[in-house]
Amino acid sequence: MKSELLKVLRQADDYVSGQQLCSRFGVSRTAVWKAIRQLQEAGYEIDAVNNRGYRFLSAPDLLTPEEIRSRLHTGFMGQNCICLESVDSTNNYVKKLAEDGAEEGTLVLAEEQTGGKGRRGRVWETPKGKNIAMSLLLRPKIHPAHASQLTLLMAMAVGEAIRSCTGLEAGIKWPNDVVVNGRKICGILTEMNTEVDYINYVVIGTGINVNQQEFPEELREIAGSLRQNLGKETGRAAIVAAGMDELERLYDIFRKTEDLSALKDDYNRCCVNRGHGIRVMERGEAYTGTTEGINDHGELVVRKDSGEEVLVYAGEVSVRGLYGYT
Amino acid sequence: MKSELLKVLRQADDYVSGQQLCSRFGVSRTAVWKAIRQLQEAGYEIDAVNNRGYRFLSAPDLLTPEEIRSRLHTGFMGQNCICLESVDSTNNYVKKLAEDGAEEGTLVLAEEQTGGKGRRGRVWETPKGKNIAMSLLLRPKIHPAHASQLTLLMAMAVGEAIRSCTGLEAGIKWPNDVVVNGRKICGILTEMNTEVDYINYVVIGTGINVNQQEFPEELREIAGSLRQNLGKETGRAAIVAAGMDELERLYDIFRKTEDLSALKDDYNRCCVNRGHGIRVMERGEAYTGTTEGINDHGELVVRKDSGEEVLVYAGEVSVRGLYGYT
Repeated sequence: MKSELLKVLRQADDYVSGQQLCSRFGVSRTAVWKAIRQLQEAGYEIDAVNNRGYRFLSAPDLLTPEEIRSRLHTGFMGQNCICLESVDSTNNYVKKLAEDGAEEGTLVLAEEQTGGKGRRGRVWETPKGKNIAMSLLLRPKIHPAHASQLTLLMAMAVGEAIRSCTGLEAGIKWPNDVVVNGRKICGILTEMNTEVDYINYVVIGTGINVNQQEFPEELREIAGSLRQNLGKETGRAAIVAAGMDELERLYDIFRKTEDLSALKDDYNRCCVNRGHGIRVMERGEAYTGTTEGINDHGELVVRKDSGEEVLVYAGEVSVRGLYGYT
Repeated sequence: MKSELLKVLRQADDYVSGQQLCSRFGVSRTAVWKAIRQLQEAGYEIDAVNNRGYRFLSAPDLLTPEEIRSRLHTGFMGQNCICLESVDSTNNYVKKLAEDGAEEGTLVLAEEQTGGKGRRGRVWETPKGKNIAMSLLLRPKIHPAHASQLTLLMAMAVGEAIRSCTGLEAGIKWPNDVVVNGRKICGILTEMNTEVDYINYVVIGTGINVNQQEFPEELREIAGSLRQNLGKETGRAAIVAAGMDELERLYDIFRKTEDLSALKDDYNRCCVNRGHGIRVMERGEAYTGTTEGINDHGELVVRKDSGEEVLVYAGEVSVRGLYGYT
């Protein structure tokens, strides 16, 4: 009831009477009052006035299932939501849930990761209480060869969530880094368990630097946070929920064709590589060129300086701007 | 030492003196004698004659690391070998080992599976002590899209192991069922954990019906065992080891090109579908045609009765002979 109660209060412009809440949830006035007390104790500011009722004032920066669910507008994405204080890696945690049969859309968040993973076993730091570390379970009925495109959907969803929650101009560095002002704000690690032609499950791990202020020396030119760009803290639950809302919308579109044909224009509009010179590094070879973005399958279409057009696949190569990270 | 000792004795045509064994392994006569005693207690028949030494007579049908390793001629395939009395599923067991960093070539066998898995979550029965249930861990540095071809390599390796150990004419029903006289002898379930462009690990689960005599009513027309075809029992360890030997050879060839270009002729020679009428069933559609076998990527090249040539991908369709299972 608490997440529904929060939702009602948050959406109301004015006070909501205790009587309205009682009939809505079919409980006693005492039960409503108790739930309000618990929310206040958790850090929510809720004004209570005799004969007028309750009014939502502000929420603490909490990552709790209630806080996230009360902001969701999804059918399933993120609805089964688990928030942990500390975990080795949210991806590993969701993989275990997946093996035990957890449902599609299950979302796990952690205030801290002690063994967070980046791609190919690299480390991904999640300092306590500052950022978003989350992993989402999907069970798409698509061919395994098409699953890599889900990573691009998540990048699009996070970009949209950042834009709508903060007003910052979030772009995507192909294939799936979300960047603000030339610094990486979000990294995504997708892992799958598949049979030859069948996906058992996909886990999309997403790390978003929200309120972190300092980065290690070696990352300072590459990594950034929303806090650094905004000059103030941002609530994390709103970003999580907005991301889930947008991802569910994109996922529905994607599943119709199992490709990005209906989404590539939106992707390319956000793609920071588009229209700029890029350097592509393959094993032992590097070349420069330009790109207008991805094709229907998420591959980067690159025109080499020699005039030849080539398709670049995620991961087999590294793509950098000619000047700096993006 | 026991697996090395078995290997030496098994390969010798005559008695091997205790002194030879002492110098070979750098241990005392008593140590050699103790090892021989332990092998005898485990069911090996080893003749011991004063002044002549030891001679290998026969091995019990044991699945033990010593028994398997003493028959292997591989660099790594199956060398790290674990034999269990009972397990839910050897694939699940190897997945856990893989997450903990187990090395490529790790092989797990079980006398019994209590929750053995076939493809897409179907059940695979492994009655105690009769058959081979094994799962192999590979960590190929290839693109995930190419990994499905590993399943075809395993089918080739099992077919060759059956031919060399029993003399039976083992064929392959595309993509990866091993068949003898029109009945399925071996099923393979390959599972992978991947990132978008990178394979963390592949687990190839293989079930071979060796000494099972009876099958449930509903499988009788489809499933068979080596025992049914030979009229007598066959040692399982020899088949496991021969399969690992052959798989390592095939894997080395495969990795050079990441495709089956150098192996497809061998595959097609064993393919029981070749030159016969087949029925291909896709979702909601069925057609008949003929095939001459696979292409470089393991896809079945089918000429429809209408004359059109199509490529058939593993798993998206079901392929049956026009008359019966194969």
